[in-house]
Amino acid sequence: METMRAHVFQGVGRSSIERLPIPVPGPGEALVRVTLTTICGTDLHIVRGEYPVKPGLIIGHEPVGVIAELGAGVTGYEVGDRVLIGAITPCGQCRACLSGHLSQCGHGEGYEALGGWRLGNTINGAQAEYLLVPYAQANLTKIPDELSDEQVVLLADIASTGFSGAESGGVRIGDAVAVFAQGPIGICAAIGAKLMGASLVIGIDGDDARLRMAKRMGVDIVLDYRALDVVAEVKRHTSGGADVAIEALGIQDTFEKALRCLRPGGTLSSLGVYSGKLNIPYDAFAAGIGDYRIVTTLCPGGKERMRRLMEVIRQKRVDLTPLLTHRVSLDNIHEGYRIFGERMDGVMKVAVEP
Amino acid sequence: METMRAHVFQGVGRSSIERLPIPVPGPGEALVRVTLTTICGTDLHIVRGEYPVKPGLIIGHEPVGVIAELGAGVTGYEVGDRVLIGAITPCGQCRACLSGHLSQCGHGEGYEALGGWRLGNTINGAQAEYLLVPYAQANLTKIPDELSDEQVVLLADIASTGFSGAESGGVRIGDAVAVFAQGPIGICAAIGAKLMGASLVIGIDGDDARLRMAKRMGVDIVLDYRALDVVAEVKRHTSGGADVAIEALGIQDTFEKALRCLRPGGTLSSLGVYSGKLNIPYDAFAAGIGDYRIVTTLCPGGKERMRRLMEVIRQKRVDLTPLLTHRVSLDNIHEGYRIFGERMDGVMKVAVEP
Amino acid sequence: METMRAHVFQGVGRSSIERLPIPVPGPGEALVRVTLTTICGTDLHIVRGEYPVKPGLIIGHEPVGVIAELGAGVTGYEVGDRVLIGAITPCGQCRACLSGHLSQCGHGEGYEALGGWRLGNTINGAQAEYLLVPYAQANLTKIPDELSDEQVVLLADIASTGFSGAESGGVRIGDAVAVFAQGPIGICAAIGAKLMGASLVIGIDGDDARLRMAKRMGVDIVLDYRALDVVAEVKRHTSGGADVAIEALGIQDTFEKALRCLRPGGTLSSLGVYSGKLNIPYDAFAAGIGDYRIVTTLCPGGKERMRRLMEVIRQKRVDLTPLLTHRVSLDNIHEGYRIFGERMDGVMKVAVEP
Amino acid sequence: METMRAHVFQGVGRSSIERLPIPVPGPGEALVRVTLTTICGTDLHIVRGEYPVKPGLIIGHEPVGVIAELGAGVTGYEVGDRVLIGAITPCGQCRACLSGHLSQCGHGEGYEALGGWRLGNTINGAQAEYLLVPYAQANLTKIPDELSDEQVVLLADIASTGFSGAESGGVRIGDAVAVFAQGPIGICAAIGAKLMGASLVIGIDGDDARLRMAKRMGVDIVLDYRALDVVAEVKRHTSGGADVAIEALGIQDTFEKALRCLRPGGTLSSLGVYSGKLNIPYDAFAAGIGDYRIVTTLCPGGKERMRRLMEVIRQKRVDLTPLLTHRVSLDNIHEGYRIFGERMDGVMKVAVEP
Repeated sequence: METMRAHVFQGVGRSSIERLPIPVPGPGEALVRVTLTTICGTDLHIVRGEYPVKPGLIIGHEPVGVIAELGAGVTGYEVGDRVLIGAITPCGQCRACLSGHLSQCGHGEGYEALGGWRLGNTINGAQAEYLLVPYAQANLTKIPDELSDEQVVLLADIASTGFSGAESGGVRIGDAVAVFAQGPIGICAAIGAKLMGASLVIGIDGDDARLRMAKRMGVDIVLDYRALDVVAEVKRHTSGGADVAIEALGIQDTFEKALRCLRPGGTLSSLGVYSGKLNIPYDAFAAGIGDYRIVTTLCPGGKERMRRLMEVIRQKRVDLTPLLTHRVSLDNIHEGYRIFGERMDGVMKVAVEP
Repeated sequence: METMRAHVFQGVGRSSIERLPIPVPGPGEALVRVTLTTICGTDLHIVRGEYPVKPGLIIGHEPVGVIAELGAGVTGYEVGDRVLIGAITPCGQCRACLSGHLSQCGHGEGYEALGGWRLGNTINGAQAEYLLVPYAQANLTKIPDELSDEQVVLLADIASTGFSGAESGGVRIGDAVAVFAQGPIGICAAIGAKLMGASLVIGIDGDDARLRMAKRMGVDIVLDYRALDVVAEVKRHTSGGADVAIEALGIQDTFEKALRCLRPGGTLSSLGVYSGKLNIPYDAFAAGIGDYRIVTTLCPGGKERMRRLMEVIRQKRVDLTPLLTHRVSLDNIHEGYRIFGERMDGVMKVAVEP
Repeated sequence: METMRAHVFQGVGRSSIERLPIPVPGPGEALVRVTLTTICGTDLHIVRGEYPVKPGLIIGHEPVGVIAELGAGVTGYEVGDRVLIGAITPCGQCRACLSGHLSQCGHGEGYEALGGWRLGNTINGAQAEYLLVPYAQANLTKIPDELSDEQVVLLADIASTGFSGAESGGVRIGDAVAVFAQGPIGICAAIGAKLMGASLVIGIDGDDARLRMAKRMGVDIVLDYRALDVVAEVKRHTSGGADVAIEALGIQDTFEKALRCLRPGGTLSSLGVYSGKLNIPYDAFAAGIGDYRIVTTLCPGGKERMRRLMEVIRQKRVDLTPLLTHRVSLDNIHEGYRIFGERMDGVMKVAVEP
Repeated sequence: METMRAHVFQGVGRSSIERLPIPVPGPGEALVRVTLTTICGTDLHIVRGEYPVKPGLIIGHEPVGVIAELGAGVTGYEVGDRVLIGAITPCGQCRACLSGHLSQCGHGEGYEALGGWRLGNTINGAQAEYLLVPYAQANLTKIPDELSDEQVVLLADIASTGFSGAESGGVRIGDAVAVFAQGPIGICAAIGAKLMGASLVIGIDGDDARLRMAKRMGVDIVLDYRALDVVAEVKRHTSGGADVAIEALGIQDTFEKALRCLRPGGTLSSLGVYSGKLNIPYDAFAAGIGDYRIVTTLCPGGKERMRRLMEVIRQKRVDLTPLLTHRVSLDNIHEGYRIFGERMDGVMKVAVEP
């Protein structure tokens, strides 16, 4: 039996590179040789035991690779095709998927909360030499020859998630948008807001490297919350409040400020993953009445989503490669986790090469 | 100077019937002789000092009447026309109104939080013999002859608000909808959900009279929260959760249960007016991610809204008169407040006759 | 090899009952023993050679039955389950399906015009003792015990199509809706408009039996185009024009009248299947400018759509059985085609029992 | 009585510069001294007698100016304010406006087809030294100091109309969009599609100067219909068809090609003004069924629309000044009409200085 190296969760605070058998694709599945992947903030949560997965699981959900073997019934692809796979791998055939709620995929049946996120969550993930892709027909997206792995790898999760923050927020031509936190997802949310026609995008953070990167990636105004009353500043720049605020961190403070900086009747689009309870300060929006919307979005997935986002890259509307600030080999992945976890050296995203 | 009787807020816990001058309509205004109005839950909050208005203000925002005088520039109406005026009286010409956010009307300028609600809030209201209607061109709706005052008076606020709970929730044909609290607004929300094609509407309350009224008004299943685990019951009746939950009370318990009874990716439409802070229990929806929506709606207004809702009544799609359980004269309005405030005798809404 | 009887297209103007092998389900497929089906207007077009299909094909796309055998990989179902299958059988995994365009299903790949409609079009259909269901995981909908075959069989196509005419038209609470032609689809469109909250639904036809049936099924006003200027009548009943007009026949005259009866900025939702060219008379809507919408809809399908519509029946919001005016055995299906094709005896839909 | 010069329609084929009294603003109106305006394609139609207006009318509907006098009841503005006025001047208070259909404004009452377009159509227009603005509260938009007249004058009509072609078409991130005709409106539609996140925008025309301008303004691919089968070319560039096609000319050929280049279930957004009848070739979209949409849009207006578009300019998302290729004085306006009407010298838009 052939084996492969993989980054395996071993219990709270522990993970290791292990040798495991290369999986064999069953009907409807595909085996992909991973050529590039990354480390996500959620992976940090997993290794630290803040998000529960079973020990023994291979971590990672942002894969680019080459098809190594196709299971029965997968059509239109060939061994050797370069493919991108989204972090969300919907079945396409359950109640949730047929309703367009791909991230709540019920695996052929009804709805399952977050059920569309399987890779590195409920099944083995992408930080390995090989990856087994479920529902391959719905989840393999061919990569145009002119695009490199580096150009597309961030579409699997953070760009899809970030853009969806703007999409769920319903950004329209001429909107003013404030994005709280300028990590990779927040910057992608800001890019998404500009892509959709926002006139003004304001990025808020308290980290110099992130504020610089935000500016470099096209954010119009960056605000440092360490030095400014950001709610007042957003209102000042936007004639009375942002049309849409996007929360991209997941803590009470950013959530609350995002609410408070809205114009009456605005939309808060929340991407952050919160823990415990969150207070909605109802005074922030007139006793809770008045046409406000709070929307939460999990990364949209599926091959059509990936295809559309790749077109955005291919037509040079957006270049995400500056966000790939660091690169490690799979064997050296713990160093990558350390850089990423401690936010060393202006890190945004760490690419991992199996 | 001619005078009229009016119900005037006098400071926390106090109100009285006073004689005040009959107002004279300025340009763009209309004077309406009120023929029927009601007492709203918000009026209770005002008298109790829980919602701040200035002492000296005439209370009330659900008026039906007859045009007594038209200010300059109001066209298409005549003295003697029977009219309904919505609780929200938008100007139609500010940024908010021109964006379709009528309840955030900025009175000719930008956005103002709840600015569309003026009657009995920032200007004199309807519990009086005469009412001055601002922006009359946008806010007078003629009542078809075949409709009585009683048939239409509840459209001004509770029906418009209740229906909008279903509309903002995006109810679709075949949806399962749970409505928390079956007071007048909750029952109207349930009616709205059925009007929009919900297959199943579940009404939840803990008051026998309200549960009976809900059943009478067409709610499919009523659940008594005193006897049942309503979250579990809603899930049992709906194959895994409601598509839309509507909150119509404004307390932590109903808000939280409404969230918990949703299917993954469902919508919470909130109509209640909350005080202080509200906890979002993020475990209720998978760490806050996953395509949930929380929408809040203030009563939509304007003459076109009123016209559309009157058509619903005129075509006998809905009959709201059973909700008008009690009736008092203006001079006797304190008795009406007592009945309504103490929920005596199965009261739903109290009509007031000037 | 076991055989079954089936109604087979034999070339323009000819069809016959034949004995054919009972098919064997491959991976992802299911074999269903048909217990009830119907004859659709499209089937008439096929037999008459007006819509092209290959000779040798089994006709029919409205099946109710019992699972006889499950192919590999279909989960959550058992042999013996009573199921409804929509006329549209999407794969769920192509670009079109993953975008929510189920009726344009590309069978695992991209978009294919009308590709979602396969039964009795590009693969064998339902007028037979057995039916092979493609993409069974996405297309088998269990029927609740308390619902009969007769109660649900019309959901497969005409009710789903008819309701979608109202849905695509964006009918809102209080809208006035005019439906041109009151055959089975037109009546279902009218029912759909009422389900979505239309205040007034006007049905137009020139056949006494259909106008009577429309009235019986809840249409508010029926207009006989033989006796009336229907455009003028619709405008008279709707203060200046319908918000939404639904065309359910597919000829120039109804299309043009549907356009002309709209209020400025209204929506024409077109369900009819046209031949050749269609004239848009641009004077009908102010030189073609001005916020009009023309939307066309093919029957939505998939198991979630069928489930939602069955809930509408189960909760007694709608009863479609009066539309099943006639019934024939499969052996006697030519008599059914004759009754249906010649509109004999007030026929609306003919049920076929294999 | 003071007088002003104005460009007056005198009957088919004739117009002249006349001296007329400077109007006096009534209640709710404003008098604006025009500082810059333009000539629109519709103005050509008017002078040629192809679009009917009354002789004696001042032509023009794209005004920038300075407030000279305010009528009673207009608040928040001062004499001397620089303002932009949209081509559409909605009242904000009729049924249409309160429904958000500003271009169908019924002037305080119901719906009126194209009723929102008054300037240079039903009341005196902008090709004059002074302009009387109706419903001034809803229609005066202050111009930020840092923006010149030239930067904003095209927002009044062509940019608002062009962008709305993309908006009504529902362009989403990653869409492929084809725009038929690359005159000023078509180019603005292309810019709008890019603003909304289209990955690929294809511009089609047969005029070298226009194709060059399209390229300069950011259109990704330009196709010359004189040399190419544009339907085939669009399909080749878009994996099977455009998601959205925008028609910006108003003739059968472009309309038909726009339909034919769509992917199954795509949207045709039509901005052109057609004459007479238009054929929909139903074979072009699968017999008229299949989830297609045809939407027509009249220029959206009102001060909030103008404000939002000015923000897009102010934040440097778009620069429209290259489209202002020519400039004439009001006295010399016939020369402007000649250059524009005969498409001389690569003309796109002609500015007129009173």
